[in-house]
Amino acid sequence: MLRFGVLGAGRIGKVHARTIAANPKAKVAYIADAVPAAAEALAKEYGAKVASVEEIMKTTDVDAVLIGSPTPFHAEQIQAASNAGKAIMCEKPVSLDVNAILETLKIVEKNKSTLMIGFNRRFDPNFADLEKRIRRGDIGDVEIVTVISRDPAPPPPSYVKASGGLFRDMMIHDFDMARFLMGEEFVVVNALGSSLVDKGIGEAGDVDTAAVQMQTVSGRIAVITNSRRATYGYDQRMEVHGSKGMLSARNVHNTTVEIHNADGVKADPVQNFFVERYVAAYANELNTFIDAVSSGNRDPRPSGFDGLQAQKLADAATESWKTGKPVKVA
Amino acid sequence: MLRFGVLGAGRIGKVHARTIAANPKAKVAYIADAVPAAAEALAKEYGAKVASVEEIMKTTDVDAVLIGSPTPFHAEQIQAASNAGKAIMCEKPVSLDVNAILETLKIVEKNKSTLMIGFNRRFDPNFADLEKRIRRGDIGDVEIVTVISRDPAPPPPSYVKASGGLFRDMMIHDFDMARFLMGEEFVVVNALGSSLVDKGIGEAGDVDTAAVQMQTVSGRIAVITNSRRATYGYDQRMEVHGSKGMLSARNVHNTTVEIHNADGVKADPVQNFFVERYVAAYANELNTFIDAVSSGNRDPRPSGFDGLQAQKLADAATESWKTGKPVKVA
Amino acid sequence: MLRFGVLGAGRIGKVHARTIAANPKAKVAYIADAVPAAAEALAKEYGAKVASVEEIMKTTDVDAVLIGSPTPFHAEQIQAASNAGKAIMCEKPVSLDVNAILETLKIVEKNKSTLMIGFNRRFDPNFADLEKRIRRGDIGDVEIVTVISRDPAPPPPSYVKASGGLFRDMMIHDFDMARFLMGEEFVVVNALGSSLVDKGIGEAGDVDTAAVQMQTVSGRIAVITNSRRATYGYDQRMEVHGSKGMLSARNVHNTTVEIHNADGVKADPVQNFFVERYVAAYANELNTFIDAVSSGNRDPRPSGFDGLQAQKLADAATESWKTGKPVKVA
Amino acid sequence: MLRFGVLGAGRIGKVHARTIAANPKAKVAYIADAVPAAAEALAKEYGAKVASVEEIMKTTDVDAVLIGSPTPFHAEQIQAASNAGKAIMCEKPVSLDVNAILETLKIVEKNKSTLMIGFNRRFDPNFADLEKRIRRGDIGDVEIVTVISRDPAPPPPSYVKASGGLFRDMMIHDFDMARFLMGEEFVVVNALGSSLVDKGIGEAGDVDTAAVQMQTVSGRIAVITNSRRATYGYDQRMEVHGSKGMLSARNVHNTTVEIHNADGVKADPVQNFFVERYVAAYANELNTFIDAVSSGNRDPRPSGFDGLQAQKLADAATESWKTGKPVKVA
Repeated sequence: MLRFGVLGAGRIGKVHARTIAANPKAKVAYIADAVPAAAEALAKEYGAKVASVEEIMKTTDVDAVLIGSPTPFHAEQIQAASNAGKAIMCEKPVSLDVNAILETLKIVEKNKSTLMIGFNRRFDPNFADLEKRIRRGDIGDVEIVTVISRDPAPPPPSYVKASGGLFRDMMIHDFDMARFLMGEEFVVVNALGSSLVDKGIGEAGDVDTAAVQMQTVSGRIAVITNSRRATYGYDQRMEVHGSKGMLSARNVHNTTVEIHNADGVKADPVQNFFVERYVAAYANELNTFIDAVSSGNRDPRPSGFDGLQAQKLADAATESWKTGKPVKVA
Repeated sequence: MLRFGVLGAGRIGKVHARTIAANPKAKVAYIADAVPAAAEALAKEYGAKVASVEEIMKTTDVDAVLIGSPTPFHAEQIQAASNAGKAIMCEKPVSLDVNAILETLKIVEKNKSTLMIGFNRRFDPNFADLEKRIRRGDIGDVEIVTVISRDPAPPPPSYVKASGGLFRDMMIHDFDMARFLMGEEFVVVNALGSSLVDKGIGEAGDVDTAAVQMQTVSGRIAVITNSRRATYGYDQRMEVHGSKGMLSARNVHNTTVEIHNADGVKADPVQNFFVERYVAAYANELNTFIDAVSSGNRDPRPSGFDGLQAQKLADAATESWKTGKPVKVA
Repeated sequence: MLRFGVLGAGRIGKVHARTIAANPKAKVAYIADAVPAAAEALAKEYGAKVASVEEIMKTTDVDAVLIGSPTPFHAEQIQAASNAGKAIMCEKPVSLDVNAILETLKIVEKNKSTLMIGFNRRFDPNFADLEKRIRRGDIGDVEIVTVISRDPAPPPPSYVKASGGLFRDMMIHDFDMARFLMGEEFVVVNALGSSLVDKGIGEAGDVDTAAVQMQTVSGRIAVITNSRRATYGYDQRMEVHGSKGMLSARNVHNTTVEIHNADGVKADPVQNFFVERYVAAYANELNTFIDAVSSGNRDPRPSGFDGLQAQKLADAATESWKTGKPVKVA
Repeated sequence: MLRFGVLGAGRIGKVHARTIAANPKAKVAYIADAVPAAAEALAKEYGAKVASVEEIMKTTDVDAVLIGSPTPFHAEQIQAASNAGKAIMCEKPVSLDVNAILETLKIVEKNKSTLMIGFNRRFDPNFADLEKRIRRGDIGDVEIVTVISRDPAPPPPSYVKASGGLFRDMMIHDFDMARFLMGEEFVVVNALGSSLVDKGIGEAGDVDTAAVQMQTVSGRIAVITNSRRATYGYDQRMEVHGSKGMLSARNVHNTTVEIHNADGVKADPVQNFFVERYVAAYANELNTFIDAVSSGNRDPRPSGFDGLQAQKLADAATESWKTGKPVKVA
């Protein structure tokens, strides 16, 4: 029985606590949150105890931590948990600062800790199946990866200031998926960006509409487009073109119901946002972590290295957008 | 060069005249119509002569007749053309009276005339491909044929009185398609009908909404549903369930354009009615006839026998609807 | 906290136990099964006690029974539970014998018991949404209901003998859905059937391929087709044609992944059978029951009356198939 | 009656001759081709005369020229036709050399000639409808244009040498469509390219796989991906994301037939190449030209300026690919 300390009782902490509770190999043992009432409410729901992060790190009653706290705390909490001998599942990103990630990964490596990063989309049943088919050779060699990713509505400009910007906050998921599907590292990044959705986002120094092209050393190409607003819901599509065929994964609709009338044939809207769209992904992700830790697999994916590489691509894209030039990635 | 006499310069006569003119093996030689101006307009367009039906039958400048006149004239015109030694392409139905069909087919047989009946849907590229795949064995043995057929808008009640009723006027096409796809004759027919779309149709002694079930001697089943009104356009779908798989043919949309917004994902409406929907079918049908006559094939399909069988099913369905009992077909 | 006695620890009992356990308003208190090991295994999983059906009926520690036992026990267990003052959720059918249903419903009525019948498909998110839109008036008046329902693989002939036959065992769900979507009772039933899938089913006195047409007193029409075998998985589709539009619900695919190659564009197979396809339906159904009982709603749907009506239609279809005649339903 | 001189009796000349012959406002008067037999065969089919390009330019029996000759002849033939007072429909591109285009357009302007460039995709019914909806405001402001364009099979390396390279030979169509859909000029072009399909193409100094990102002065973004090989046929898709919605146009399948079996649900392949896929586009394009000339509209689109702008983008992309840097477009 894997006893979890859940750090952060917000939206994502709740999603993960539900998965832990439903998994017979794990239990929610402790909850920490800066807002005591939030921690208490969640603890009560699952019969867990409330404690501070420090107490959770110290207690021997916790085997693993689920880090769902705000981004600025991720690196230090990973380090503390690693030093305390706990297995670590951390929401993306490890840090907005690549040096902090490198430092954190050194500690994790030194302690031989189990660390998995929460790029949940890899565990979406559709995308996971798509990747499985690529690796199985169904489309031969991968040549072009296309990722279309659009949020239903933009965050307030106040949010974007602290977020690290669209490339680090939103497109980071797409960088991870592009690496996941491509199966080869990217060496050059070209980015374009604009604030077309909300001028306030531009005034806050960020973009809300962006495109990135990347190329691997062997010449394969990935194309990502992002928008902070899609009137039709959460747009999450991937397409991989290979030497023997093409694989695509469409959006997920609320239902299969279609209405046919004088206006045409109308399908139901697509699932609106990530809590609905990725409900299975979040559960599969955490169950994968629980299985890994339970079975002694010390290297579940996405790993800390995956977190580092996605961050490097996000940094490169940010620089490319700002300078108007392609940026090489080591 | 196959020289056609086109009998009837109405909507369907125009469609066929265009196909004849575009086929290098054929030409529109004569046009007949009860309305002289209609005949003249069409004749002028294709450099043809205007003549009476009798003159067309007599002249040696006509090799084949295209019968697109009103239904009550079909049987006698087939007989006259057969006796005059001409090849005959006749719009469905041969007659609303099975005895008249039998008499007509006797004459056709005696004269060894080439006769093809205009069940154009067999030549729709989608349905033709579906049938080809069945015959090729792609789905093994056929078990259930499903035909959904709905017109965009009902005719006026005045029309239905002379039409022979929905089963003979509209569902006749579906009876032919059910036979075509099934590849075995039906021996029992069950029909239900109502006037839900226009009470006036019911008062005129007809139905506007109907369902028919039929079974073959070996137990295979066909299900047909009709409505005289579909707000979303001309609904023409077929599905064939077999021992090794299922084949379906969907509706044809005006374009492939879809709009995605807060209402959902909306495809373009389906093609509205038969002139659009079956434009290729009409051309393929008549070109098939031209090829058959040109190459000496005396038995193009759908044959006069196909016309007879569809009419028998329509009569059986009409009787089943009226009596509320299943009707056996010889 | 609604304390459940679960009668039957088989496949369906397990599905329901999981839903009960996950609902914070309910708990699995007791399990009964003719096979003690099965009861014990399930009881252990949810911290419940094992008991006989009689003990469960007697104990005051049980508020509601979930009847997932074999069909022949349903009526007597409903009666016993009703007499014991418990709320009752019973898998379909109440009985294969309409008189036994009538007798059972009398007792339920006398005791003012809460009884809900397990027609789970009403709770499938797609079909539930379709029905909600009909009732909301999105397609005007309902005119034609089409239900296509095919199982992936036939049961052994030995099964069908005890099952009551396809119309009572399999199509019963479709009769319920046709009533649910139509919103008006059917007065006449026409059935056709054959054994095309497995001759052994025919030799056992049943059919494996069937079509039913039904009409309501106001003339509306429903068409149902069934097959005991679909090579492409569990085929569960519904379509409702109305005066202002048409609503359809397609099959549910395993994933949204499509592969595009020289063979065409291939979507993933549809979900194979009811445990996968209706996982959400089973949960929504039981949660609806729990909500009803918890909130004092004594008339959750589908009711005992719904169970009765579906059975009458199944009996009528069986008779129609056997006699080759339409059968009237009171 | 618009009398055409058709320059070039190859594949594309034949397609256009058929459209001219079918249009009652136009006729094929003369055919020129470097291969006399080709000119004669086509001339015979349409009752036209064979002549040299010079003779066609001189004769007063020709009102318009259709330039379907090899690319190196386009500019000089446009100039000659313009100087001869003829209306000009010219296949893309005007020239691979922007200076030659500029010089040609000067002459066209001086002579006030009617010139239309053969970017046929604008006239595809799907893409034309998509554009019409954008201009009508259905999706608000355009933000991201996505063009996916893949040929079924690569040309031989010998071809690419003379072609000007993928960006000028193949992607030129996509540059035109991006401009057409965007409705604003692009100011910066980023290109990536590789030879992943055929190493010989790389050795010939070209790419077979490419991605381009472009941005307009107001920050709107277009993304184009090309491959010279798609095992699933001719992939031609467009998507436009706007402030109020998204419009997409899918590929066109051979038929609507789908087969459902244990492998999944398989749609028919998409139309294989441009002669099939754009049959309606070619006809609509030329009929638009005929209508324009017949009605005295001197500025049909796509204009010579459209040809110039697409060529500038193709040059910029070629330079960007070669230098690895973004290229500004005036």
